[in-house]
Amino acid sequence: MMRDFVPPQRLLLGPGPSMVHPRVLQALAAPLLGHLDPAFLGVMTDVQHLLRFVFATANPFTIAVSGTGSAGMEAAIVNMVEPGDAVVVGVNGVFGTRLATVIERCGGKAIRLEIPWGQVIPTEMIESALRRSGPVKAVVLVHAETSTGACQPLEAIGSLCRDHNALLIVDAVTSLGGIPVDVDRLGIDVCYSATQKCLSCPPGLAPLTISPRALSAIKGHRTPCQSWYLDMALVAEYWAEESRAYHHTAPISMIYALREALRLVEEEGLPARVARHRLNSEALVAGLMELEFLPLPPAEHRLPMLTCVTLPPHIDEAAIRRQLLQIYGLEIGGGLGPLKGKVWRIGLMGESSTEANVLTFLNALEEMLIQFGWLSTPGIALHAAARVYSRTGQKEY
Amino acid sequence: MMRDFVPPQRLLLGPGPSMVHPRVLQALAAPLLGHLDPAFLGVMTDVQHLLRFVFATANPFTIAVSGTGSAGMEAAIVNMVEPGDAVVVGVNGVFGTRLATVIERCGGKAIRLEIPWGQVIPTEMIESALRRSGPVKAVVLVHAETSTGACQPLEAIGSLCRDHNALLIVDAVTSLGGIPVDVDRLGIDVCYSATQKCLSCPPGLAPLTISPRALSAIKGHRTPCQSWYLDMALVAEYWAEESRAYHHTAPISMIYALREALRLVEEEGLPARVARHRLNSEALVAGLMELEFLPLPPAEHRLPMLTCVTLPPHIDEAAIRRQLLQIYGLEIGGGLGPLKGKVWRIGLMGESSTEANVLTFLNALEEMLIQFGWLSTPGIALHAAARVYSRTGQKEY
Repeated sequence: MMRDFVPPQRLLLGPGPSMVHPRVLQALAAPLLGHLDPAFLGVMTDVQHLLRFVFATANPFTIAVSGTGSAGMEAAIVNMVEPGDAVVVGVNGVFGTRLATVIERCGGKAIRLEIPWGQVIPTEMIESALRRSGPVKAVVLVHAETSTGACQPLEAIGSLCRDHNALLIVDAVTSLGGIPVDVDRLGIDVCYSATQKCLSCPPGLAPLTISPRALSAIKGHRTPCQSWYLDMALVAEYWAEESRAYHHTAPISMIYALREALRLVEEEGLPARVARHRLNSEALVAGLMELEFLPLPPAEHRLPMLTCVTLPPHIDEAAIRRQLLQIYGLEIGGGLGPLKGKVWRIGLMGESSTEANVLTFLNALEEMLIQFGWLSTPGIALHAAARVYSRTGQKEY
Repeated sequence: MMRDFVPPQRLLLGPGPSMVHPRVLQALAAPLLGHLDPAFLGVMTDVQHLLRFVFATANPFTIAVSGTGSAGMEAAIVNMVEPGDAVVVGVNGVFGTRLATVIERCGGKAIRLEIPWGQVIPTEMIESALRRSGPVKAVVLVHAETSTGACQPLEAIGSLCRDHNALLIVDAVTSLGGIPVDVDRLGIDVCYSATQKCLSCPPGLAPLTISPRALSAIKGHRTPCQSWYLDMALVAEYWAEESRAYHHTAPISMIYALREALRLVEEEGLPARVARHRLNSEALVAGLMELEFLPLPPAEHRLPMLTCVTLPPHIDEAAIRRQLLQIYGLEIGGGLGPLKGKVWRIGLMGESSTEANVLTFLNALEEMLIQFGWLSTPGIALHAAARVYSRTGQKEY
């Protein structure tokens, strides 16, 4: 017989999942309701209201896809891209690369805008791609590239897309709930996210919002969506308050959890939440730079919830990460793809973004570096972080 | 600000989700681990062992797909069917109909074997389809058709498929954990299920097992799988103990819950679990028949975990179901598609399959029927059920 499982204690400071508030864990454990029970349909309505709030949108179609963030990505693409469609996609990390693959798997023609990892796609590059290509169905950009820590500017892209009659699709997996994702103001047509990053809910759902303009485009498609499970025209019938037609059994417990996680966002307020992410990230970066861990993206394009740093020469990064996990129960992320072994990715997402966690991590890192003979003076990173915190005086959160 | 949510108490006797054991709810609420944490990888290994046990298979590829049962269906089809492939599919209910759609959406040619709902597909019909069609890539059958309560016989189909060089794909969404699903003995190549039926775990995962023969077929495909999220060649790299390569973030909490739900199955033992489902179903049917609710499928093809009954004339089925929910907190299912308004679907799945639940439901139903003026003598259904229970003497569970 298989033994009981008690998870070891972990401080999750990687690229997600992030720490989950006890209220959210408690919501997960609530007794089940049927997926057509009026009481559960009320929970769905609540989740839709709260998602519109975090996405800053009035889009009626705002739901949680029954899968992880990658399912949200696939839902966004397979519903918008038909065989033969040209799609401009920014490729400056793992997730842009993956998007191009998903576009091609549904018969689209991916026009890749390739830029070194850690950089962002310049607006002029998008504009020139739109100008020199024939008709473009959509422009797809990753707002927060989790593999590099770069924050893609989105101002002006929405109107550029409208000028060229293209839809704007944005991956907000890591940004939603940590920096503003102003869907309506930015003119984003399709925006998807994930629950386990700055919303601090367990992984398993993908928030998704689709503008009326993009919904009309779906209605005009010549072919049915290649995915039945992710066919948003069908899924919409279940989420729409006026129909609630069965499509597939919703992941009840995860929807409970998302409702509670979003309530916590609402209670904190988006401006305070954004300020908290910014402040803790600033303190973390100040400390890391003292230790010669240098942010990969330029200062103006750094994400506050995911800090990607290059490593000082000659350190055994895998050994340090392993010991941070084994000795301190502290998880951070390594590099993906070509950045494997070359960077660390430290996440301060949602509940994980606290002053205590920044100090705990920097202290553990200093201890490790001293033990590995790479650092002699303890406290320099903590000191730099403390300077950031003291400077802010009255905390905004 | 949005208010607290406390779900009303429900007795879930519909077509799923079923009742969830407190140990499973508690597992859901355990603190998160990262999806690449060695402690979490151990949980995945446990889940694979336990799934092989319930599927009665030695297939190394035995995993939980990160989506609900419908995602399992789609994963089975999009990984096996390439554009132009002919696929024989049994269509005798909602889920067979849906399978044919999914096959066509990935470019397959669905050869529909249509049979009245409530009946099962005769083996001779499958054989003759295999003989008269050209090469057939796969035969797809729904083991437990949740829309009709019919149990598809699977004996002999596996060898028939091998004789015609076709794969056998089986939908075991509602059967797994309630009746034997002997994947290896029956020669099933691809078998998928869902967590919220007889495994009594919340919805959100789809157990899936693929035979080495079917995996070779995938490797020989001319085109990549149209779905990136459900591309099992990629997902296999994450679940394989020797690689554990990141594909997408696993739904951590749901995997915890599935592990615990499967442990409960292991503790009870499959033969005892099957006997329990059979006995409670027999008592339920005996009671229902006294009230003129008659099983749709013939006696030899009835599912024990999902009883689909036609209704006595002139009863207001929707009103009774609504009151069962509102007054008794008791959920049962109505009919789907052409059976809407014509049948009820009463589920006794996993934790929901108990003597207490059978008696509670029959009693509530009698009270309703008396109130609606359809029944005058109370207790006849309860009496019939009690006769079944007393006959068994020493209980097998």
